[in-house]
Amino acid sequence: MRFAYQGEPGAYSEAAALRFTDHADLLACESFEQVFEAVDQGKATHGVLPVENSIGGSIHRNYDLLLEHDLPIVGEVQLVITHNLMALPGTRIDQLTRIYSHPQALAQCERFLRALPHVAVEATYDTAGSAKLVKEKHLVGAGAIASERAAQVFGLEILQSEIQDFSDNITRFLVVSRVADPDPLVDKTTVVFSLPNEPGALFKALSVFALRDIDLTKIESRPIRGRPWEYLFYVDLPLGRHDLRCSRALVHLAEFARSMRTLGSYKSWKSRESATPSQV
Amino acid sequence: MRFAYQGEPGAYSEAAALRFTDHADLLACESFEQVFEAVDQGKATHGVLPVENSIGGSIHRNYDLLLEHDLPIVGEVQLVITHNLMALPGTRIDQLTRIYSHPQALAQCERFLRALPHVAVEATYDTAGSAKLVKEKHLVGAGAIASERAAQVFGLEILQSEIQDFSDNITRFLVVSRVADPDPLVDKTTVVFSLPNEPGALFKALSVFALRDIDLTKIESRPIRGRPWEYLFYVDLPLGRHDLRCSRALVHLAEFARSMRTLGSYKSWKSRESATPSQV
Repeated sequence: MRFAYQGEPGAYSEAAALRFTDHADLLACESFEQVFEAVDQGKATHGVLPVENSIGGSIHRNYDLLLEHDLPIVGEVQLVITHNLMALPGTRIDQLTRIYSHPQALAQCERFLRALPHVAVEATYDTAGSAKLVKEKHLVGAGAIASERAAQVFGLEILQSEIQDFSDNITRFLVVSRVADPDPLVDKTTVVFSLPNEPGALFKALSVFALRDIDLTKIESRPIRGRPWEYLFYVDLPLGRHDLRCSRALVHLAEFARSMRTLGSYKSWKSRESATPSQV
Repeated sequence: MRFAYQGEPGAYSEAAALRFTDHADLLACESFEQVFEAVDQGKATHGVLPVENSIGGSIHRNYDLLLEHDLPIVGEVQLVITHNLMALPGTRIDQLTRIYSHPQALAQCERFLRALPHVAVEATYDTAGSAKLVKEKHLVGAGAIASERAAQVFGLEILQSEIQDFSDNITRFLVVSRVADPDPLVDKTTVVFSLPNEPGALFKALSVFALRDIDLTKIESRPIRGRPWEYLFYVDLPLGRHDLRCSRALVHLAEFARSMRTLGSYKSWKSRESATPSQV
């Protein structure tokens, strides 16, 4: 078992991967694409990918990549995100002139950052990568927003911990593999479909679930490239593929969906009780 | 009339604003927040904001800001996006070592960029701002992806034009103002609502439109901050607020929505016929 994730050591994706394995079996990748490729090519058995944050919303790139690759979803983990402001040891907050982090992390610390009006905020492609940048380039007066582990890994000092605006800041990660999960106890299914371009099409599609009292825990629309203002819909159902209600609803949906694909049936691992998805 | 937009001169938002006014009445802002603030504070009469691209999907930040501010939507314009690779005059493509642009623009030119494997791709916060960066810092060997007008404004040479992966690359912009559009001929309405946390809630909500044969041209979900995995839904209806079917559907929706707000009723301006929204 080898788990690929995107980011530097200390990235939140690494923490998600560590729920399944230990440090010896991790493979750090530069991009989400490379995580999918590592699993495609057998360099890793699993890939761990963030798909949604409770504050920032969906990470659409990964929804697109799920569609481009043929790797079934085999697991899910939810992680409470705690952001920390860090800098070179000995730095005081009032000495900072700029702060680096991933745009989602910056957005999640918006109130905190607004209280530092003389500090320039700079977006980077990775939270832990920002910590690495500050350390490796020895950027005096620069801060990074990242995980506690990133501070440890890169030898930075935490100037203030838990700086996120909302304590209920949770990221959902999906785990992909080359082989579907054979476990009969899978309890969640993700499906993607497109619909004919006619009035009420989405209403009809949702009826296949509503008529069977199936709650959707998530619905997401993504544009279809090359077909302006037509959309793909991703839905999550709280049932495994072996559940009769689930399989009947999907057969029903296939009757009038233009296209449809089950991205995976898997077990959801929650990091704590309060992170239970609500119904839509 | 003064139109605020985000970006440097030559930004696609500037081109959208120029559909309504001329150069004398434009106000360039650094961020989307500043566009909203400029209208709030009376520095501009209107704000022009991208909300969706047919390839990249929604620009969620602007949906969030529409909710945070009390500025009604009064117009819509769709713009065909044409990306160009530009650099300091005299540069050849094979001399480029890095290319700067906004992440959405980079994503929309993915195939083109993949054919240049030795070029580093760097994300910035603005397409036209990337052109400005290359010019002002005289970055030899650096390219920028931006509009033709950005090349003119910043004195760069276009090395290759129309480098976007899909020709049907269209961005929808909304226009906000302090006063709702009094025009009785408005033909589109945007509504945002939240739903009780119970099975089939979204299905019921969509029924108020389906029962009246109202097509939804767009549906988008956004997380509710502080309430993990609960969502706000944004829908666009192809009817003005004066239309009886529209007003009745909204009264019906208000019966069981947890919260509901009409963000505006407005006229849609299309840049060309093929950009007609399809039904969902």
